[in-house]
Amino acid sequence: MDKKTLLSTPVEPIDIKAFDAGPILEAMGKTAFQARNLHRAAEIYLKMLQDDCAVILTLAGSLVSAGQGLIVHDLIRKGLVDAIVATGANIVDQDFFEALGHRHYQGDPKADDETLRRLWIDRIYDTYIDEAELRHTDYTIAEIADSLPPRPYSSREFIWHMGRYLAERGLGEKSIVRAAYEEGVPIFVPAFSDSSAGFGLVYHQVKNPKAHVTIDSVADFRELTEIKLKAGTTGLVMLGGGVPKNFAQDIVVAAEVLGHEVEMHKYAIQITVADERDGGLSGSTLSEAQSWGKVDAALSQMVFAEATLAFPLLASYVYHRAPARAKRRYADLFSVEVPA
Amino acid sequence: MDKKTLLSTPVEPIDIKAFDAGPILEAMGKTAFQARNLHRAAEIYLKMLQDDCAVILTLAGSLVSAGQGLIVHDLIRKGLVDAIVATGANIVDQDFFEALGHRHYQGDPKADDETLRRLWIDRIYDTYIDEAELRHTDYTIAEIADSLPPRPYSSREFIWHMGRYLAERGLGEKSIVRAAYEEGVPIFVPAFSDSSAGFGLVYHQVKNPKAHVTIDSVADFRELTEIKLKAGTTGLVMLGGGVPKNFAQDIVVAAEVLGHEVEMHKYAIQITVADERDGGLSGSTLSEAQSWGKVDAALSQMVFAEATLAFPLLASYVYHRAPARAKRRYADLFSVEVPA
Amino acid sequence: MDKKTLLSTPVEPIDIKAFDAGPILEAMGKTAFQARNLHRAAEIYLKMLQDDCAVILTLAGSLVSAGQGLIVHDLIRKGLVDAIVATGANIVDQDFFEALGHRHYQGDPKADDETLRRLWIDRIYDTYIDEAELRHTDYTIAEIADSLPPRPYSSREFIWHMGRYLAERGLGEKSIVRAAYEEGVPIFVPAFSDSSAGFGLVYHQVKNPKAHVTIDSVADFRELTEIKLKAGTTGLVMLGGGVPKNFAQDIVVAAEVLGHEVEMHKYAIQITVADERDGGLSGSTLSEAQSWGKVDAALSQMVFAEATLAFPLLASYVYHRAPARAKRRYADLFSVEVPA
Amino acid sequence: MDKKTLLSTPVEPIDIKAFDAGPILEAMGKTAFQARNLHRAAEIYLKMLQDDCAVILTLAGSLVSAGQGLIVHDLIRKGLVDAIVATGANIVDQDFFEALGHRHYQGDPKADDETLRRLWIDRIYDTYIDEAELRHTDYTIAEIADSLPPRPYSSREFIWHMGRYLAERGLGEKSIVRAAYEEGVPIFVPAFSDSSAGFGLVYHQVKNPKAHVTIDSVADFRELTEIKLKAGTTGLVMLGGGVPKNFAQDIVVAAEVLGHEVEMHKYAIQITVADERDGGLSGSTLSEAQSWGKVDAALSQMVFAEATLAFPLLASYVYHRAPARAKRRYADLFSVEVPA
Repeated sequence: MDKKTLLSTPVEPIDIKAFDAGPILEAMGKTAFQARNLHRAAEIYLKMLQDDCAVILTLAGSLVSAGQGLIVHDLIRKGLVDAIVATGANIVDQDFFEALGHRHYQGDPKADDETLRRLWIDRIYDTYIDEAELRHTDYTIAEIADSLPPRPYSSREFIWHMGRYLAERGLGEKSIVRAAYEEGVPIFVPAFSDSSAGFGLVYHQVKNPKAHVTIDSVADFRELTEIKLKAGTTGLVMLGGGVPKNFAQDIVVAAEVLGHEVEMHKYAIQITVADERDGGLSGSTLSEAQSWGKVDAALSQMVFAEATLAFPLLASYVYHRAPARAKRRYADLFSVEVPA
Repeated sequence: MDKKTLLSTPVEPIDIKAFDAGPILEAMGKTAFQARNLHRAAEIYLKMLQDDCAVILTLAGSLVSAGQGLIVHDLIRKGLVDAIVATGANIVDQDFFEALGHRHYQGDPKADDETLRRLWIDRIYDTYIDEAELRHTDYTIAEIADSLPPRPYSSREFIWHMGRYLAERGLGEKSIVRAAYEEGVPIFVPAFSDSSAGFGLVYHQVKNPKAHVTIDSVADFRELTEIKLKAGTTGLVMLGGGVPKNFAQDIVVAAEVLGHEVEMHKYAIQITVADERDGGLSGSTLSEAQSWGKVDAALSQMVFAEATLAFPLLASYVYHRAPARAKRRYADLFSVEVPA
Repeated sequence: MDKKTLLSTPVEPIDIKAFDAGPILEAMGKTAFQARNLHRAAEIYLKMLQDDCAVILTLAGSLVSAGQGLIVHDLIRKGLVDAIVATGANIVDQDFFEALGHRHYQGDPKADDETLRRLWIDRIYDTYIDEAELRHTDYTIAEIADSLPPRPYSSREFIWHMGRYLAERGLGEKSIVRAAYEEGVPIFVPAFSDSSAGFGLVYHQVKNPKAHVTIDSVADFRELTEIKLKAGTTGLVMLGGGVPKNFAQDIVVAAEVLGHEVEMHKYAIQITVADERDGGLSGSTLSEAQSWGKVDAALSQMVFAEATLAFPLLASYVYHRAPARAKRRYADLFSVEVPA
Repeated sequence: MDKKTLLSTPVEPIDIKAFDAGPILEAMGKTAFQARNLHRAAEIYLKMLQDDCAVILTLAGSLVSAGQGLIVHDLIRKGLVDAIVATGANIVDQDFFEALGHRHYQGDPKADDETLRRLWIDRIYDTYIDEAELRHTDYTIAEIADSLPPRPYSSREFIWHMGRYLAERGLGEKSIVRAAYEEGVPIFVPAFSDSSAGFGLVYHQVKNPKAHVTIDSVADFRELTEIKLKAGTTGLVMLGGGVPKNFAQDIVVAAEVLGHEVEMHKYAIQITVADERDGGLSGSTLSEAQSWGKVDAALSQMVFAEATLAFPLLASYVYHRAPARAKRRYADLFSVEVPA
């Protein structure tokens, strides 16, 4: 098969505004196992929104390529998320990539990877990506870095400039990066170079060996901790585990290390396919997180499910039942500097 | 139970020099399923060592706390590993922590986490940690940062200073950080602030608001790519997935983005409990990585197993059969500066 | 807590007639991973119903206790299922149990099992059962056996008498056993004694040592193979794996062993949390089943998901889109004998 | 590739007598996660052997095809197992099959199943079987059935005749069925027809419509319960879950239903890849089994691992450390009748 045929059916982002999963999820809440857990998680998310509580959303795993990005966009626009911690793949390789006009495509999990390699098609399980379009994303990141004064940046600050880049060009209206930029939602990517951003920034640094943009992940940690101090009560909505989960949980301890008394995350839900038995963080229970003083287990819920099945149901339920809620615009806590 | 009783039985690092898993693993290689896969993975690791090939080890999941750190130490000392990419938890919270004289303890996966919280005991599944000792680790990181000239550092460079700190004080002879420092093995932690290092460095930055150490994860990516360019042929030995797996795989593409022609990783093995079905990177097959042009699938092997069971067998097998091999000392590629 | 409090919130069977998961599942079908797989599985089920094809449903795992039984009932009543192969737990301990008027209760997966033991409460993850009510079920099975002429029975025949028992007493109108009895859908439980039926039948045999009912599982195999020969084209809808999956797949080979030329199962879908990596049957792929000559892989789909989340969506989708279809009443193939 | 090439490398049964995994397992017992759990499970198995306790071994999953059968043989010959509950696949399709002189072969998990189908090669993940040899096994079962007086048999009794068939012909000296026959260890297969035995017995019944052998699985349950009553103290060693796990656990309740006071299984260990989150029995915890009054959780241990990696280590450990122990020969509890 040729490249054009292989890249002919795009993944379509799922639109939780188009349906209300409420009746289904309520019925599931009276059954058992993960269906009941999913309903309870949705209820806890609703409680966060009813409480005076900052909602931190963490994203790991291939979510945007799998059509889950529009959900995050919609949550941001409606003011149901106050800060985001994510992997670089979701924010740069997938969301910013789509904002630039590229698409993900429906593919075959049993494809011949040698053939794909030859055609410059990258595969994520059953999804295809045009590597040439990914390279374009890399170089766009380099272009943004070239435009900025050479100094250390938090990923949050750099991603704000990515949002500005999109807004100024009228690109990516439905993207996470653009929506977050416009709605004042800070996005943190603690392992920022582990993504298409890394390729672009390495390119930028090698081209500008003397003076260049650097990404200080310590600044990310410091800034997210400031948000915790500002917010007081906080809740976590976690898709997958990994660095974003750990990072967001850790700010409670970071605040303590800095000498502040803060409460644990009062609410926490996680959708994950990992489990606790190997000691990996992604599957570690929220009860375990309580021993670390990070999460109050009373209002927490693990849902052991794959995100494409569980997240649309949960998000649709919450979207259609959320109370009106002022946007917190935590991004405005940090001064920004737009180069001339 | 009181804290002293709960923290009475330390985890003992497993010593692969004390037994030869060879006969068992060879017999397993003639059976089926993951036992046969594990044997094949060990054979591929041996092939890397027989070839003119740089071995990059990636570490994710709680390995050092689970007694797997001495294995990594032994592989470094014998020259069977040329570069390491790891999570901050393994390198800072667990290995450097133990190097400072602290221990991990055998605990109960069903412990009451509220009680543990009150006693300042952190739990990882069935393992306990004294939170007070973790805080000591945080502040030691801050102390090291305070001693360095304020400027951006790669995690590789900062960890080198951690190794120097240990060596100068005669601490942690059996630790990964100390051994890597002495044997010239660079360690990269792309999400460095997502760990005890993050706590220490946030503390350092807040105390020194004007001029302070920053951690530039782009520099890590640039440096590891330089090693790829220097090494030519490379092989990956991966424990778990996450950022370390992705980061190490990506340097092939990074080299291309910089305009170099490089070969894919020729060898690749991974021990993981994740699977490919949710599109997560940790479980994505090495065949899938081939579509991205990162890994040559011909000499690759996934082993779906929990690391504490599989890694000691694999490492013991390789340790007792490895050919003599000169240390590559890639750490020496990068200039260092010891403050007066 | 006392028993009454623990057993106060029943599991409510989910009613797929009350909502149409169509819009959600169609949207999921354009995303990725297991959501897209689930949509494809639903489409394949629809294809079975549009084709001249017998649909065999297999049930493993705790489905009825988890509120999934009414779905099966509804599929039977609407003529969307032609034969069932199940575990004894689903048919006897859970469905027949509920038909006798007992309930399952919402419980806590972290309950203290020692306490539950003392209170005669059995736990399935997050679901509670009153052991006294289970014993009542056991003895009802014994009562039915006592009423039958002593000779070997297939489980299919015995379960038909269970359905008759319910119908004659006006019990369990919404149960699988009753609906199957009335709609002519044969139910096979190849490991019949591995359930509450086993307790009842052992009791019956011990009380009647000379002449008693026996359960001949070979007869089940023979009868299901007859249905295959009668049906020609067949499709499998499998929830979980285990004996029911294997048994239903095997009838293709059984027909061959008897000297008949039959086609493989033309359609096959499975919802399971197991995977293929350990060689277990429950997670073995339908492609693997093709090597055995049991399933044609072209129109097959595995969905790696937990049934409580996936089955209601799939079944609701199919229920609301299924073409009108005559009931096949395969139960009538076998003569029955109602004792005076 | 032709059939001969594909079937050229047999699986070699692993021989736990040839190595002592003791030093490795003891070291693992001081680490964490599943390695520590595996060591504890081995210690509990040793405790069973030191106590006055009957050991019931349950087998599910493809164990014999994966080279684990010789381990079971060795445990039987040394008197470390007193009764076995298994799937038909392990006992008939795989063990009896090998006893007849056939072999399993190392294959490729990514093989083209359509090709295999054409060549009459069956695949289990990475293992190949010659379907023609399986058919020979089916017909041998039919031959044995033909030789027996037509009446109901427990699977235990029928398998005893399979052992006799082998012994009389000098076949399968290293097989489970032969060793069990000679050492007086009863083997129960509650879903007997769900296997190659089913094919053979269906063939037998169809050829002999008037009078034939039937398999009464209720008799199995009754007989295993008698063993429980005879043994008093019992322990379970479980590989995988499924029907064998449930069946063996249930005899405690069966005894109660019959009016006897018996103690729960005092010891229980399980090696499984399943987990508890979907309510499936295979992954249900032994603590959960306590709520049912089946297993005393105090001396129980789940090991979440794939059997080919974990079972050889556990069994080698126990084999080399087991106390001398008289064989219980529970098979002799039941009268047998050898046809003239």
